[in-house]
Amino acid sequence: MTSEIASNKAFGGYIKKFKAESATLGLSTQFNVFVPSISGPSNGYPVLYYLSGLTCNEDTGPWKGGFLGHAQASGIALVFPDTSPRGAKVEGEEDSWDLGTAAGFYLDATSPKWAKHYRMFSFITQELVSLLKGLNLPLDLSRQSIMGHSMGGLGALNLFLSTSQYCSASAFSPVCNPTKSPWGTKAFTNYLAGGIEEGEKYDPSCLLEKAKGRSNVHILVDYGEQDQFLKDGQLRPEALQQAAEKAGFAQENVNIRKQEGYDHSYYFISTFAEEHIKYHAKFLKA
Amino acid sequence: MTSEIASNKAFGGYIKKFKAESATLGLSTQFNVFVPSISGPSNGYPVLYYLSGLTCNEDTGPWKGGFLGHAQASGIALVFPDTSPRGAKVEGEEDSWDLGTAAGFYLDATSPKWAKHYRMFSFITQELVSLLKGLNLPLDLSRQSIMGHSMGGLGALNLFLSTSQYCSASAFSPVCNPTKSPWGTKAFTNYLAGGIEEGEKYDPSCLLEKAKGRSNVHILVDYGEQDQFLKDGQLRPEALQQAAEKAGFAQENVNIRKQEGYDHSYYFISTFAEEHIKYHAKFLKA
Repeated sequence: MTSEIASNKAFGGYIKKFKAESATLGLSTQFNVFVPSISGPSNGYPVLYYLSGLTCNEDTGPWKGGFLGHAQASGIALVFPDTSPRGAKVEGEEDSWDLGTAAGFYLDATSPKWAKHYRMFSFITQELVSLLKGLNLPLDLSRQSIMGHSMGGLGALNLFLSTSQYCSASAFSPVCNPTKSPWGTKAFTNYLAGGIEEGEKYDPSCLLEKAKGRSNVHILVDYGEQDQFLKDGQLRPEALQQAAEKAGFAQENVNIRKQEGYDHSYYFISTFAEEHIKYHAKFLKA
Repeated sequence: MTSEIASNKAFGGYIKKFKAESATLGLSTQFNVFVPSISGPSNGYPVLYYLSGLTCNEDTGPWKGGFLGHAQASGIALVFPDTSPRGAKVEGEEDSWDLGTAAGFYLDATSPKWAKHYRMFSFITQELVSLLKGLNLPLDLSRQSIMGHSMGGLGALNLFLSTSQYCSASAFSPVCNPTKSPWGTKAFTNYLAGGIEEGEKYDPSCLLEKAKGRSNVHILVDYGEQDQFLKDGQLRPEALQQAAEKAGFAQENVNIRKQEGYDHSYYFISTFAEEHIKYHAKFLKA
C-alpha cells in the first residue's frame, strides 16, 4: 500500500512524496519522486535515483541539491529514498549520527541485532522499483541510473557495481573505501555479522577492482579539495582511483575529479548538479 | 565587530556567513553573502537582498531557493539577512510561529514590549548596508535591489516602496495587504503602538497606492494559484493589483503574475528563481 502524502508543482513538473509499507524493511518508509510532467512521453521518463548522506532523509536532495530544474531540462525523473529505515527500535539506533537512523549505509545488515530492518540495499534495488512501477506516473524503469552524496555516494557506487540494473553511477564526495575509514568500519562492525571482511562487498574500491573486464562501467565522481572529511580520511578517493587503474578502466569509464576549493556541503553538490544530471542523461537517453 | 563564521565555495564564487553585533537590534545577528567571485569587478557586484518568510532564517534562501547559480550567471551578489532578532527575551517571543522569533515582519516595532530589539526595517535598510561596506568583499552598495518570500515578500515590497535605495523589488507569494490579513493584523497589533492603523506604513498595497506618480517603480510579483495561504486570505494579491491600478502603474512597472498549479513552497520559489534574478539584473546592471 503506497499513498501519496504530498504533491508540489516544480519546474513545470511535480515532486510527489509517497509513504509505503515496505515488506523488505518491515516498516513504513517515505520517498520523493520528481517527474518533468504528469503526462510524460508515452514510454515514460528514465529514472535517476539520488541517495543522500548521513543525517539526511528523502527531502534533503530535492530541497538542497538543485537537481529538479536540470532534470526537467534533460527529461529525466528523479527518485529520492530515505537514508535508513525509521523507527526500527533497535537498541542504540538513535545514539549516534553515523549509525542507525539516517545512517543505513545502503546495505543489508546480517548481524542479528540489525538484520530485520536495516536492508536498504534490497529495498532500493528491488522493492522500490516495484513500488515505483505501481504508481500512476510516467516512469520508464527499464532505464535507471543512480547518484548520491557521501554515504549516499558509497551507496550509488555499490548499487551500480554489484548489480547490472543501472546505466551509470555518479557520486559527490563519496565514501570510496569504507573498509579503511572510520565511518565504514564502525558501520560494518555493527551491521555485518562478518564485520569488515564482509564489508568488502559494500566497498566501492574493492568492487571496482573486481569489476575488471566489465563493460558499460560509467562512473563520475566529484570531490572537494577542501572537504573536511577528505582530510579526516573518511572518503579516500585515492583508493577508488587506484582500483580503477588496477582494473584497467579508462578515464572515460571512471572519471574521478578533484574540485579545487569546494567542501562537503550541498553548496558543492548544487554547483555540480547540472553536470551530473547531464552525465546520466547521456546513458539514460542513449 | 563583524566576523566571518563560515565560507563555502559555490558556483565558482563564495557564500560567506557573518555574525555581527547590531547596534540597531541590540543583539548579535547573522547573515549570508554570496559573491560570484572573491576578486570581482573593480567596482564590485551589485547587491540583491533576499528576505525569507515566517519560521525561516538566513540559511533558508541560500539552501533552498536555488538562487546562487543564477546570481553567478548574472554577475550579482546576494545578501540573506535573518527574519527577526534572536534572543531578545521578550515575553511570548517563542510561543507562536507567526510572532516574535523568525517573524519580525521587517518593521520597526513601536509598542514598548517589542521596540527595543524588533527593528529589522532599520537594520536592513541602514545598518546592514554599513556592515556590508565594512567587509572585504567586492560589493557595489550603490546598486541594490530586493526580493523576498511571503512575509519576506512583504518586506521586500515595503522596503522598496518606503525608501529610494533599491532599483527594483520582487516577491514570491508576498503578504500584499497585511492590514487586512490574519498574520498582518496579529503582527501590527502586537508590534506597533498604533496597531493596524500604524501598520498601513508597512502594507505594500497602501504604500503602492500612495506611490502614485513615483518614477522608477519596478516590481515583479509571482504567486501560486494553489497556495494554501492565498486561499486563507493571508496574501491578497488582488489588493496589490487594485492599488497598482488606482495609482496608474502599468504592467511593465508592477507585474503581478498568478502561476497555475504552484503552491507556497520553496519548490515554487526555486522554479522562478532564475526569472527573478534576471529581472533584477536588468535594473541593477542598467
